[in-house]
Amino acid sequence: MADPGSGGALSALELYNRVSEQGDKVRALKTEKAPKDEIDAAVKLLLALKTDYKNAAGADYKPGAPPTSDTPDTSNGLPAASDGDDFVDPWTVQTGSAKGVDYDKLIVRFGSSKIDKDLIDRIERVTGSKAHHFLRRGIFFSHRDMHQILDAVEKKKPFYLYTGRGPSSEAMHVGHLIPFIFTKWLQEVFNVPLVVQMTDDEKYLWKDLTMEKAYQYTIENAKDIIACGFDINKTFIFSDLEYMGMSSGFYKNVVQVQKHVTFNQVKGIFGFTDSDCIGKISFPAIQAAPSFSSSFPEIFNGRKDIQCLIPCAIDQDPYFRMTRDVAPRISYLKPALLHSTFFPALQGAQTKMSASDPNSSIFLTDTAKQIKNKVNKHAFSGGKDTIEEHRKYGGNCEVDVCYMYLTFFLEDDEKLEKIKQDYTSGALLTGELKKILIETLQPMITAHQERRKQLTEDLVKQFMTPRKLAFDF
Amino acid sequence: MADPGSGGALSALELYNRVSEQGDKVRALKTEKAPKDEIDAAVKLLLALKTDYKNAAGADYKPGAPPTSDTPDTSNGLPAASDGDDFVDPWTVQTGSAKGVDYDKLIVRFGSSKIDKDLIDRIERVTGSKAHHFLRRGIFFSHRDMHQILDAVEKKKPFYLYTGRGPSSEAMHVGHLIPFIFTKWLQEVFNVPLVVQMTDDEKYLWKDLTMEKAYQYTIENAKDIIACGFDINKTFIFSDLEYMGMSSGFYKNVVQVQKHVTFNQVKGIFGFTDSDCIGKISFPAIQAAPSFSSSFPEIFNGRKDIQCLIPCAIDQDPYFRMTRDVAPRISYLKPALLHSTFFPALQGAQTKMSASDPNSSIFLTDTAKQIKNKVNKHAFSGGKDTIEEHRKYGGNCEVDVCYMYLTFFLEDDEKLEKIKQDYTSGALLTGELKKILIETLQPMITAHQERRKQLTEDLVKQFMTPRKLAFDF
Repeated sequence: MADPGSGGALSALELYNRVSEQGDKVRALKTEKAPKDEIDAAVKLLLALKTDYKNAAGADYKPGAPPTSDTPDTSNGLPAASDGDDFVDPWTVQTGSAKGVDYDKLIVRFGSSKIDKDLIDRIERVTGSKAHHFLRRGIFFSHRDMHQILDAVEKKKPFYLYTGRGPSSEAMHVGHLIPFIFTKWLQEVFNVPLVVQMTDDEKYLWKDLTMEKAYQYTIENAKDIIACGFDINKTFIFSDLEYMGMSSGFYKNVVQVQKHVTFNQVKGIFGFTDSDCIGKISFPAIQAAPSFSSSFPEIFNGRKDIQCLIPCAIDQDPYFRMTRDVAPRISYLKPALLHSTFFPALQGAQTKMSASDPNSSIFLTDTAKQIKNKVNKHAFSGGKDTIEEHRKYGGNCEVDVCYMYLTFFLEDDEKLEKIKQDYTSGALLTGELKKILIETLQPMITAHQERRKQLTEDLVKQFMTPRKLAFDF
Repeated sequence: MADPGSGGALSALELYNRVSEQGDKVRALKTEKAPKDEIDAAVKLLLALKTDYKNAAGADYKPGAPPTSDTPDTSNGLPAASDGDDFVDPWTVQTGSAKGVDYDKLIVRFGSSKIDKDLIDRIERVTGSKAHHFLRRGIFFSHRDMHQILDAVEKKKPFYLYTGRGPSSEAMHVGHLIPFIFTKWLQEVFNVPLVVQMTDDEKYLWKDLTMEKAYQYTIENAKDIIACGFDINKTFIFSDLEYMGMSSGFYKNVVQVQKHVTFNQVKGIFGFTDSDCIGKISFPAIQAAPSFSSSFPEIFNGRKDIQCLIPCAIDQDPYFRMTRDVAPRISYLKPALLHSTFFPALQGAQTKMSASDPNSSIFLTDTAKQIKNKVNKHAFSGGKDTIEEHRKYGGNCEVDVCYMYLTFFLEDDEKLEKIKQDYTSGALLTGELKKILIETLQPMITAHQERRKQLTEDLVKQFMTPRKLAFDF
């Protein structure tokens, strides 16, 4: 019953060889007394590979004893991705490379499809709009069934957008905006309804957080999402904790998904253990349910056949591989997906930004001065050590965080290209590049803060009220 | 964090010895070529004991290797009861004795308290009513914290009743009425609100059943429950599938319980495995949630401190041991409980009645003729083989199903005592005893069918509408 579209999982034998190689690597690092964090990362990857192997082979890894049968049990769920030096699941993103995760490998690993020029051209044709720079620049780089969505649009069939946020703190950083900025563009060019799930139940289950606090974060985060400019007539934002008790459709879909996913599967996909609480174990069904239009009877008039398109960061894909596996078994359409790369931390592309480290990110609450200081002090540079060397050899845009940030936030393609050329040639110095980023971020954040300030509690409440939107179904 | 009130679990060493003994017994049965069902039952008990042992000792049972440490890990949940020949969990009740389960042993095993004369006297004093014959005759035989409930009543503090039903088919049998007949009496003598949970989500998850069918069974079963005579102003009946989407309190309590129970615990309590779907694994939280008054904000005006009393068959106790374990950790009151014995099948007290075997039970839809035929043909008799022997030696009321049924349904104590004496002495013949039962059941069932026929869909809907009841909180 595994989703054929989610193929590409490694066989038990391939994983066996990976574990062996990674074991050798860990031993080598220990012998050469490598830095602790390097060893830790290698060990973590080794453990992840062993878990992958166990899921595929149905038995623990034993050195010198390769799997007897080379038929992976994909019905047991898809293991977390661990490709070369990269490890990606919904809670951990790790890579050894300053350039960040190898996304081409991830596409192969996850069995998704690359967003290529043909697809981008088709999106432009179908929408009559120039592709968003996140598409043009490969920030949204992977998809599942996007052509199906475009087929539907061409046939005048409706679809809807679904994205979400886990409200783990009041403070959101600029990286958190990426899916919302892109979703807003999709909503505009396709003119479709959007549902935004705030998984406050997830955060209550995972964190040392009261339920009241998790809901409060939902409201505060919803304000930042609304401040991205979503159309109130086309957008429904909901708290799981609240909406579960307000919808005649949501819980029914949750239970349907829960009936068709075993503990073995979520163990394989998400790495849950017997010591995890039963709330975590059943949560994936709650993130799955908004993929089905019948979860929102108020919006879709009870219709079960409106397809869903989910823009999200690639680390959320495991939830939706599971969803796509279950969908046909409960007579629902598989959701389509658009995957983004990760937003790099100021310190470099090795990890995602962290809301718990104030210096790893530019927060939406930062002042102009804080932005300036953080960029100047913490942004990892691809420049050379001295001005002389930089002028002579040029900087490296591939690892420079300021340049990376500009690919996200500087919309002007020509200007960005010129910056790249000048930095690479050495004509543009690191301090100058940082200044460009600071001057891009400051007005953007200030404008966001202004829009957020304008929001009334009443408007937030309206966004969060289950209701008919400006569409007839 | 184990509930001290739920103690009495066997130590690892005691369980080790039980497994050894049961292993010997299985081997003996096989050697003497005992009947297949007898061997199967013994093997089943052996496996259950091994699971108990593993939960207590933290390792698999190994012959000849008793546990090194004799400290059971009760935080891993309480194992299903398996006492001597009896096995009791929410899905299986098995005993080797024609007298039925040994309830005194079960009290020790489950760590509950016996309903003794003192408690019955106190209930009569506090309510000013004669105790129900289910109490007088030990049909409700065990409790947890019933004195606390009576303390509250004496201090004029409110409490509420919670019971439930898993709607697995349209047909309910007379055994299903026991908790409802008793709950109705409790509601009358204490004058308190009652909530009745219909676990249609559970039945959808466990059975090969559509969600629509499970909900339909809920409505049909609700009619039989209402026909017991519940006061519409004091009773709320709800379908999980429906109420989850109508209540601002229910899901929040479900998630709170789910955060505080691990897979290890439900594995120990309910015997779930890695192959079970995540819906089953998280379901116990859904049966737990109605034990907390804040699950019904409409009834209790949002109050969290109204204590709950749960009348139920003893096989449901594992759910509520779990609930009582979690309650103080989420700042709620532990529910109190009143436990009933099992209603015997017509074929004898070895098992519970089964809704799937029409001849094992008297159904609420049976005609007078069907009742007569079933009792005459299938009711296990404690009489002797010939009239001569019966007159000489007398019958055995302890194993006679007709007599057992009369203890449930013949309210007149003197008449029942006379029947017992006459049957035991041999003055009353088996045919005569069967006739008494038939003439007791026929008018009772006919009256039930009449009351059920009077019910309108609208009345059922009223019972199932979340609303304020005739109490101020």
